[in-house]
Amino acid sequence: MTYCVAITLERGLVFAADTRTNAGIDSVAQFRKLHHWSWPGDRVLVLLAAGNLAVTQSVVSLLNERLGLPHDKKTPSLLTVPSLYRAARLVGDTLREVRRTDGAELEASISSFSASFILGGQIGTEAPQIFQIYPEGNFIRATDDTPFLQIGEHKYGKPILDRVAQSSMRLGQAAKLMLLSFDSTLRSNLSVGLPIDILIYERDSLEVRRQKRIGADDEYFRNLSAAWSDALRNSFAQLDDFDV
Amino acid sequence: MTYCVAITLERGLVFAADTRTNAGIDSVAQFRKLHHWSWPGDRVLVLLAAGNLAVTQSVVSLLNERLGLPHDKKTPSLLTVPSLYRAARLVGDTLREVRRTDGAELEASISSFSASFILGGQIGTEAPQIFQIYPEGNFIRATDDTPFLQIGEHKYGKPILDRVAQSSMRLGQAAKLMLLSFDSTLRSNLSVGLPIDILIYERDSLEVRRQKRIGADDEYFRNLSAAWSDALRNSFAQLDDFDV
Repeated sequence: MTYCVAITLERGLVFAADTRTNAGIDSVAQFRKLHHWSWPGDRVLVLLAAGNLAVTQSVVSLLNERLGLPHDKKTPSLLTVPSLYRAARLVGDTLREVRRTDGAELEASISSFSASFILGGQIGTEAPQIFQIYPEGNFIRATDDTPFLQIGEHKYGKPILDRVAQSSMRLGQAAKLMLLSFDSTLRSNLSVGLPIDILIYERDSLEVRRQKRIGADDEYFRNLSAAWSDALRNSFAQLDDFDV
Repeated sequence: MTYCVAITLERGLVFAADTRTNAGIDSVAQFRKLHHWSWPGDRVLVLLAAGNLAVTQSVVSLLNERLGLPHDKKTPSLLTVPSLYRAARLVGDTLREVRRTDGAELEASISSFSASFILGGQIGTEAPQIFQIYPEGNFIRATDDTPFLQIGEHKYGKPILDRVAQSSMRLGQAAKLMLLSFDSTLRSNLSVGLPIDILIYERDSLEVRRQKRIGADDEYFRNLSAAWSDALRNSFAQLDDFDV
């Protein structure tokens, strides 16, 4: 499984993805699920991937392959699409293309066809945005009402996002929130594992300045995790017991 | 969907279940999912049910029907089984019986056959125990390593249990923990809804003394929910932001 989350804020975007993949619990490996492309001054695109690794890698390979093609209108690429909406359509169409190639065999097997993505970034003067692309290739865009999107093993880490996430947050504050959402998920589900890739995009910067891979030895994450556990246990202890 | 949780403690057992059922989001109803039988001085049995309501109701109806039969060894009932292990087998066997009756038609439809149970209580001088019964009719027993069991929509409410649950807790403290686990679930998933039925069993009491239905107007639950939200937000604000 996988856990990926992204949030859209007034000040920019924050993305995070774990790196564990597994085909059964006895076949566990580490793969990057956070991909990004940047052409400084023009556009930044970030893609988070969940689901069947063969499918998501094919999508990323096809997206990369098209970057090298001539920039005509018949072969849109992440470099040439005029908007994030068109970029999301491109990812969705590429996913449909992979389904046409591999879908029948996968559906006939026990593994089935599964893949979903979060795409975000900024193109030119357009506002930064994030999209969630479904296995069918269609997609939704996050808005201020619910500024975050999640894919993969999303339930364990959702309650804290539901309580705290707001589009007015500072970028570093949102990154902290996402790491806490990961912390709950890591504790409760073995299929999501460290390290976590995190990328913070500052609005209108049009380049990737802040990203980090957070492993088990990361001092900030270890302190955050311990402090949060303590805070939860202390808060719990201070609430009145139930009595009937 | 449904959320049910139970915990086994040195001092006894605590059970909780929501009451929302839905067949699609436009067909929502309220049904009791916490059932109990008590023969004071002899035994107390508590059953939490998740899954297809027609299936779980059939199981409960058959269990009740057998209570009225003559107490011979060929027709075991909740009243006559000599141990909780045998009670769990009885529930599992009854579930298999319902599968034989209704399984084929349900598997052929979109709804499929789904049902799981948590059974707990105490029989005579045996220690109180809780069991989780799977749709296949087999089951596991909770131990001190992981003293709680969950069925239904369990992921949202699992992180707080993973952090806090211990078999040395007081009964009222465990009930508070379960209500917080419900609070996270209720906020994040519409298919789980108030009121919550909660039952606290005191070890060796061999009767049901403490149970309550907790609705939206329950003062303790409202205060708990508000205080927990405040505590989480305050704790979050006090942790250092992420910086890279």
